[in-house]
Amino acid sequence: MTTTANTARHGLENSELHDFYDKRGFSGRVGCGERPAVVVIDLARAWTVPYPASPLGSDLSGVIDQTNRILEVARAIPIPIFFTTMEFDPDGSDIGSVVARKTPHLWTLARGSEWTALDPRLNRLPGEVLIPKQRASAFFGTSLLSQLIAHNVDTLIVTGCSTSGCVRATAQTGFDNNFHVVVPREAVGDRSPSAHEANLFDIDARMGDVLATDDVLAYLARIRDGALAIR
Amino acid sequence: MTTTANTARHGLENSELHDFYDKRGFSGRVGCGERPAVVVIDLARAWTVPYPASPLGSDLSGVIDQTNRILEVARAIPIPIFFTTMEFDPDGSDIGSVVARKTPHLWTLARGSEWTALDPRLNRLPGEVLIPKQRASAFFGTSLLSQLIAHNVDTLIVTGCSTSGCVRATAQTGFDNNFHVVVPREAVGDRSPSAHEANLFDIDARMGDVLATDDVLAYLARIRDGALAIR
Amino acid sequence: MTTTANTARHGLENSELHDFYDKRGFSGRVGCGERPAVVVIDLARAWTVPYPASPLGSDLSGVIDQTNRILEVARAIPIPIFFTTMEFDPDGSDIGSVVARKTPHLWTLARGSEWTALDPRLNRLPGEVLIPKQRASAFFGTSLLSQLIAHNVDTLIVTGCSTSGCVRATAQTGFDNNFHVVVPREAVGDRSPSAHEANLFDIDARMGDVLATDDVLAYLARIRDGALAIR
Amino acid sequence: MTTTANTARHGLENSELHDFYDKRGFSGRVGCGERPAVVVIDLARAWTVPYPASPLGSDLSGVIDQTNRILEVARAIPIPIFFTTMEFDPDGSDIGSVVARKTPHLWTLARGSEWTALDPRLNRLPGEVLIPKQRASAFFGTSLLSQLIAHNVDTLIVTGCSTSGCVRATAQTGFDNNFHVVVPREAVGDRSPSAHEANLFDIDARMGDVLATDDVLAYLARIRDGALAIR
Repeated sequence: MTTTANTARHGLENSELHDFYDKRGFSGRVGCGERPAVVVIDLARAWTVPYPASPLGSDLSGVIDQTNRILEVARAIPIPIFFTTMEFDPDGSDIGSVVARKTPHLWTLARGSEWTALDPRLNRLPGEVLIPKQRASAFFGTSLLSQLIAHNVDTLIVTGCSTSGCVRATAQTGFDNNFHVVVPREAVGDRSPSAHEANLFDIDARMGDVLATDDVLAYLARIRDGALAIR
Repeated sequence: MTTTANTARHGLENSELHDFYDKRGFSGRVGCGERPAVVVIDLARAWTVPYPASPLGSDLSGVIDQTNRILEVARAIPIPIFFTTMEFDPDGSDIGSVVARKTPHLWTLARGSEWTALDPRLNRLPGEVLIPKQRASAFFGTSLLSQLIAHNVDTLIVTGCSTSGCVRATAQTGFDNNFHVVVPREAVGDRSPSAHEANLFDIDARMGDVLATDDVLAYLARIRDGALAIR
Repeated sequence: MTTTANTARHGLENSELHDFYDKRGFSGRVGCGERPAVVVIDLARAWTVPYPASPLGSDLSGVIDQTNRILEVARAIPIPIFFTTMEFDPDGSDIGSVVARKTPHLWTLARGSEWTALDPRLNRLPGEVLIPKQRASAFFGTSLLSQLIAHNVDTLIVTGCSTSGCVRATAQTGFDNNFHVVVPREAVGDRSPSAHEANLFDIDARMGDVLATDDVLAYLARIRDGALAIR
Repeated sequence: MTTTANTARHGLENSELHDFYDKRGFSGRVGCGERPAVVVIDLARAWTVPYPASPLGSDLSGVIDQTNRILEVARAIPIPIFFTTMEFDPDGSDIGSVVARKTPHLWTLARGSEWTALDPRLNRLPGEVLIPKQRASAFFGTSLLSQLIAHNVDTLIVTGCSTSGCVRATAQTGFDNNFHVVVPREAVGDRSPSAHEANLFDIDARMGDVLATDDVLAYLARIRDGALAIR
């Protein structure tokens, strides 16, 4: 029940390291399933308004554009769409001292503030669930997993930021729960190019297929056109 | 209730990138708590017998030596000690097709086989719990979290392998649950030196303090000597 | 995608209380889904050898008979089948003092002992996963949820014992995760008839449809005969 | 580290059934720990405004009074206090069809509506965390567990409603995670007196100590007076 279409790794150039991993039984191709959902990670203003206006921010316009290409097809099918943001009590009572010390930037993410709002370029529609989270993985302390089960999802298309933080952690938990995890390379971003590349490598080796966004779009088009059943 | 001792980052030399992260509110020093436990990740024969005798293996004798230094003090205090290994049904019925395809090496980890047994150099003692797991994080699908609560633990000292897989995933879940996470740099290992370094960087920036093993030993010695209360 | 067949409550006679709950928006009929799995709870010798030979035991031969009727059809289709048992380290190191004090009977459930073995009358077959657990819910600290996702299950048929303990807790977690939960009334049992009835009432009001075993068999027969798709 | 004070079961009169359970290794006395938190379950207007003005409601003024007695001492110490409510997207997109069908009353619990607001008689103060949840257990899909760990809690005092639903489910998960669970009998309530009694029995047998509220107050007074350390 898995597509055999083009799922070649894209843009991961360190071929020697790939070969090293392949020989040891990593980096298998999982392929896409039949009932995907899109999970857009943390494209809220705290991350999409570039530094220094937002301490966490960087220029993610390309990531937003690629995510919007995916959302357009996803809405046309339609398949379930989830957005995440991060938010804490404005008085900090729910943050925990360990988390507050390691990642003090989280103090800026007060519930209801301008920073936790989704970037308006995403045009979130009614019925597209916004999941507030407090940790890297979109599954931790949220209802995402039960909602995916309710929608009979088998494949997660993960976009957004940051590749080395919340995207990777979400991919890990998705994989842990036996979802096909697909990461469209140009639709995820990170403030650090080297962390971006290193984590795409680990994601592809250990938890999900890193694909070209065009290949993900082709997969969704096949679903839209009925070549793959959605139930 | 957190020690203010030497928790400087150790051996993470990319100072420019560190400065970049610090300015954005990452990489804070969490420090060690008062009631640590040691979690030794996957130092089983599948990983400790070098490739190609074991497809997953590499030379981890240094990691085992450093882990044993930590275990010696931990046993003398004593504090709780947990070991993990990975294991699946020999007939593969509990592995899941997604997991089996992405990481086909897991097929070698049949419950009861020679590969899933802990490396004998660790000399696991009675009362030191062995936790079989099926995913990267020692918390996923296991009783580790409830056991840590039962022992009133606030700090996890994570050693073992691989830095880019199970060590990082365990550090992430430990941090998610508000434990102080401490990673003794020389007591964790990875088959890929570049993945090792990149993931130590991410761990230190996002989920735990990467310390010199000597500093972790000094911290444990203070607990052994009663300078920090164990309850 | 839900069957509209006979899902009337069966054998729950307290009609006044039912009416009271119905008016307040409980006890809705969920119905059965399309891709069921059977989860047989704790029909191990500790529970199936009657008291006092086993301190936890009672006469569950009727429950085993009804479970076997369900298993026969389930194996013919086939659909995924899971069995649970409970087990702890023989030295008690993983039990936790709170759990050990509230439910001291758990001390008898040493891993590998005669008491934790499944009742041989169930004839567990290869490929039918045995899940050792340490708490009431079959989901707590186990891989059950990820395995259900791997098999694309949407419906849990829960049998076994005890209705007031592990059956109810498993039904609760199944419901929490948006699975259709079906409890065949004669295929679950409890050492206390009053606790059995009270908990069947709560299960039916809050988390799953309590059905006659014959109705569950009819549902499975429709799946076997292709009236409902299994994917 | 557990108090040996009066933890006798209170008001559970079915002595024959108690004896039956005791002989089988249930209903042990766990006792109270040293670092309690109060978790007030679902004392929001949907439950505290009596039926039929609120379909879910009943007269819980006694439960609120007893909860307030506990909160008064808890605030004076102080110890962590958590309140829960239930809430869903007003458009129902995050409710899941299984949950919506079994418990259609949940449709009234739109985020931001008058029904999901805490009963004003509780006078929630700044720093007392309000946890919105979507299932019975206060732990499911929430950050409660990680917050309890952050506060180094070992004991949960669970009050509120309903005994047969969210109180029991929260007690179960608390017990599963090795917390001492204490249920002050007069501070929990249920729209059905028989479900209330049956579930207090199960809670006391399987997951927590059901105590007189006065005994819980005496325990908290000992902590306030320094007879038990709070760290």
